Amino acid sequence: MNAVSHTVRVSLGARSYDILIGRGLLQQSATLQRALAGQQVIVVSNVTVAPLYLEALQRALDGYAVQTHVLPDGEQHKTLEQLSGILDMALAANAARDVTFVALGGGVVGDMTGFAAACYMRGVAFIQIPTTLLAQVDSSVGGKTGVNHPRGKNLIGAFHQPAAVFIDTDTLQTLPEREYSAGMAEVIKYGAIMDREFFAWLEANIAALMARDAEPLAEAIARCCTLKAQIVAEDETEQGRRALLNFGHTFGHAVEACTGYATWLHGEAVAIGMRLAADMSDIETGERKRLSALLHAAGLPTTAGGLTCEQLLEAMGHDKKVLAGQIRLILLRALGAAFVSSDYDRSRLVSVLEQVNG
Amino acid sequence: MNAVSHTVRVSLGARSYDILIGRGLLQQSATLQRALAGQQVIVVSNVTVAPLYLEALQRALDGYAVQTHVLPDGEQHKTLEQLSGILDMALAANAARDVTFVALGGGVVGDMTGFAAACYMRGVAFIQIPTTLLAQVDSSVGGKTGVNHPRGKNLIGAFHQPAAVFIDTDTLQTLPEREYSAGMAEVIKYGAIMDREFFAWLEANIAALMARDAEPLAEAIARCCTLKAQIVAEDETEQGRRALLNFGHTFGHAVEACTGYATWLHGEAVAIGMRLAADMSDIETGERKRLSALLHAAGLPTTAGGLTCEQLLEAMGHDKKVLAGQIRLILLRALGAAFVSSDYDRSRLVSVLEQVNG
Repeated sequence: MNAVSHTVRVSLGARSYDILIGRGLLQQSATLQRALAGQQVIVVSNVTVAPLYLEALQRALDGYAVQTHVLPDGEQHKTLEQLSGILDMALAANAARDVTFVALGGGVVGDMTGFAAACYMRGVAFIQIPTTLLAQVDSSVGGKTGVNHPRGKNLIGAFHQPAAVFIDTDTLQTLPEREYSAGMAEVIKYGAIMDREFFAWLEANIAALMARDAEPLAEAIARCCTLKAQIVAEDETEQGRRALLNFGHTFGHAVEACTGYATWLHGEAVAIGMRLAADMSDIETGERKRLSALLHAAGLPTTAGGLTCEQLLEAMGHDKKVLAGQIRLILLRALGAAFVSSDYDRSRLVSVLEQVNG
Repeated sequence: MNAVSHTVRVSLGARSYDILIGRGLLQQSATLQRALAGQQVIVVSNVTVAPLYLEALQRALDGYAVQTHVLPDGEQHKTLEQLSGILDMALAANAARDVTFVALGGGVVGDMTGFAAACYMRGVAFIQIPTTLLAQVDSSVGGKTGVNHPRGKNLIGAFHQPAAVFIDTDTLQTLPEREYSAGMAEVIKYGAIMDREFFAWLEANIAALMARDAEPLAEAIARCCTLKAQIVAEDETEQGRRALLNFGHTFGHAVEACTGYATWLHGEAVAIGMRLAADMSDIETGERKRLSALLHAAGLPTTAGGLTCEQLLEAMGHDKKVLAGQIRLILLRALGAAFVSSDYDRSRLVSVLEQVNG
């Protein structure tokens, strides 16, 4: 029950670290404590996750000077104001340079805790304990941290690698259905952009995965983390290949921005975005159908009602992936092979965006 | 007149850059433009410096898409709120990832612009054009960026190296007497901590330097930048030797914090701090006198009225250089040789702090 079933190494020279995956990791004192920088620990969580797992984590950190900070839940709270609150709290607690920030929660908690650790005294250690599927396969790995801005997502942030990532797959048992599906969107993304074999494996195992069977779940998470670790090791600060991980995200961020980050979960918006990106790609119709079918089997949407092409184009103009005014898109050559394109037909983009409603 | 008289290389692998020192650099279009990442430029300055030099800089950047942002003047505006204003402005200007942030001003402008560049879309290019002596010899070199917090100075920030530093020594001609002296405190610091020969050279040339003679001034600035570049190349993120640059700063920050950052300029507080640090050091009385005499010749204070030892100790508790509760001090073995100490007599610290009033 309490064992590390998979270990994935992220190779980044002096900033290398391990992702440990297993059941009950949250309670493994010795494993957790090895990753701490000093005696002071600041655990950041949110009002949803804290009642479920904070006490167990505090027990596992017995003997350390642990302070906790509980954020409100939701993407709308991923702001510079909330970040400032974390920093105020750490300073009030007299946290020194050898403090370790620990993120216990989903992507919002992880991104904000990581950014707080990046800025606190110009950078202190932090550990990710992601409790959502999305955070486990995506945001907790790779060092991207930050907050949103009214003009767009993650526009203010830093690259700051964690000292370790602990993925306790048991935490997924309490995850609401919709959030679980949203995480599965990112799992499917890895297959679509870089691993055709994994995509086929997902098609074969999607029922077991949706039933949250522990074994295939740990296997899928480990595969995703391995793929992401490869890309991050090659291109830590997204100068090149790392951009492939944004498949579906340029469209997805636009969908989220146009709906005030309130209607869709990030993973749902990415699912819609992946469908739009597939429509922009010169791939076989059969492959487009396989992608949509897998997304639907994972309980994900592929259309968004009530948006206009103009709104989406305007929102895409503020995406970070715009370079010198030109919108770059991640497209597919085939399932399992993505590439960055800034050489596409703008009228095709408009007609694809007009189909966002389905 | 318009020539680079000294070039100092800061060697940091892929993040290496040059510091160019000379008269009239601000107007050298070709030199400035070579350092820009793309066509978009955001120049950040303040209400004091902008009327003097912003127009000349804009002329030199003719042909680029230049936006300007003018901050209020003063350390009390080095806040997360003002930082947020810079980021809002950049986003409103649609600045893309290849934008270059340019800091035109003193240390506050440089630190905030650098931190804004560090956070904007997780890091974009920036250039330092320091216009105060203090910024030219200290804060513009080495990549420390950040803002203050009510609990202490520079507690929130990042390490983010500039793409280039342009030191136009002509800008010093408009610097108020008191600020010029404050910058000289940091110049003297380099001699005191690591270059006994330079310290003696300063003693011999202090009159010419205070008269702002262009030649010895450029020579002193180049020497300081060379010394700082050496230390930064060895220890970019202040794990070890870079801490020596904080000579006088632990005490100085405490003096500033206790007076609400309103009474003393940073350099003046550092001068007072260096005197206190010298009093804590086991050096000859003659060397202590030489340091005080040079500080006085540079128009600097060595005492601060109205403070108590208790206030200073409390403020020092919030300094970044506190590791696990122990205050570390930079002390001297002799003029020209500093070291980090956490092994000193606390009662001596108390009696030295009691002499802060003189």
